[in-house]
Amino acid sequence: MISVIKIGGNIIDNPEKLTEFLKEFASLEGPKILVHGGGKEATALASTLGIETQMVNGRRVTDSETLKVVTMVYAGLINKRIVACLQSLGLNAIGLSGADGNAIQSVRRKAKPIDYGFVGDVSKVNAELIKSFLNQGLTPVFCALTCSAQGQLLNTNADTIASSVATAMSRIEPTTLYYRFEKRGVLDAQDEVISKITPEKFEQLKTDGIVHSGMIPKIENALQACRLGVETVYIGQTAVSL
Amino acid sequence: MISVIKIGGNIIDNPEKLTEFLKEFASLEGPKILVHGGGKEATALASTLGIETQMVNGRRVTDSETLKVVTMVYAGLINKRIVACLQSLGLNAIGLSGADGNAIQSVRRKAKPIDYGFVGDVSKVNAELIKSFLNQGLTPVFCALTCSAQGQLLNTNADTIASSVATAMSRIEPTTLYYRFEKRGVLDAQDEVISKITPEKFEQLKTDGIVHSGMIPKIENALQACRLGVETVYIGQTAVSL
Repeated sequence: MISVIKIGGNIIDNPEKLTEFLKEFASLEGPKILVHGGGKEATALASTLGIETQMVNGRRVTDSETLKVVTMVYAGLINKRIVACLQSLGLNAIGLSGADGNAIQSVRRKAKPIDYGFVGDVSKVNAELIKSFLNQGLTPVFCALTCSAQGQLLNTNADTIASSVATAMSRIEPTTLYYRFEKRGVLDAQDEVISKITPEKFEQLKTDGIVHSGMIPKIENALQACRLGVETVYIGQTAVSL
Repeated sequence: MISVIKIGGNIIDNPEKLTEFLKEFASLEGPKILVHGGGKEATALASTLGIETQMVNGRRVTDSETLKVVTMVYAGLINKRIVACLQSLGLNAIGLSGADGNAIQSVRRKAKPIDYGFVGDVSKVNAELIKSFLNQGLTPVFCALTCSAQGQLLNTNADTIASSVATAMSRIEPTTLYYRFEKRGVLDAQDEVISKITPEKFEQLKTDGIVHSGMIPKIENALQACRLGVETVYIGQTAVSL
């Protein structure tokens, strides 16, 4: 079973939490892949450099100067910090953007209706390459940058990278996808973790108004990954499967 | 024959020269490895961020803030720019720091007599890993960062990385090392390129005062790489060999 684990800003921005997570990750059995998002450092660097951060629908608009910033922070600072820490824990990690080894190809998002700039949607994951790294005892650590066939680096949603990688790997070997999450999982009306969500349960939860707003697309994406071959998607401690 | 090619600031800082070089590099036959130095962008970013660049004997002193800057610029901005451009040229490049795959281990330089900060001297090159990448059709692109056994990223001289990688690869397969150079090569008194330098010729050139100052350690390092197994070291168009 391959484990694909995605971490976001709530872990990356907190050095203690990050170290704690990486220790846990390093001790996890079996082949595994880490995907990390950005966090506050890109916004902070952009601000220091006088580059205005523009958000539309909660997503960063990536102009050419912002692309430079995220390339520096995601592929440089954060990725190498994680890889170096994992090496010190005895885990042979290898940091990758989608450009490296042509691992994750993407297509630049159309400028209409909203021009997000240098933002890409994943078109192809090189699962054979990733599998060959796993076979060599290497643990891939992906940052949220991909590359178009024209050699253009593109800022790409880390959740999407994680589900695309997990889906592609599931065609080779059973794969589980874990979203590390600021909450314990998907919570019910009593703030208890819902242990398991199936498509039927999801419909019921929506009808009852227990899941709403941002959680709906998250669960929809998880179910879609399951339909495409992933065994189980964990949102925190909540297991989503067919 | 494996080719290891090192480029420095004179190419990296000039977008047209860089593109021209990468086209030439992509069309080069046989297994190959690229090593790139830093360039002006790290100094410019440090300056914008208000980090003072301190040089001792022509080498950058790397405090923790400077290490962040070089990690962002070398491993992020420059490395991914090169990898993405090579991908667009149909060459399957993979960008690496020494931390990635534990490819290049180093030891932090002692703080005496001069404290260069987070600077490392190469202790071990993982030639088997690099060879496995070459066998997979991948072209490694190394930035000038290595990693200690304690997981500390360390700024490392790119010339030294290139000769260490070439020396390690030469134990597996014949290897040639190329230093791309701002001049055409080592020049004689008439400003003509000296086509070949052997240890005997080198002694004569020193006695005659034709090579002096910074060129002496460069040729000494090249001859040392040859003694350690590299077939030929090209300094520009000048071939250095035993």
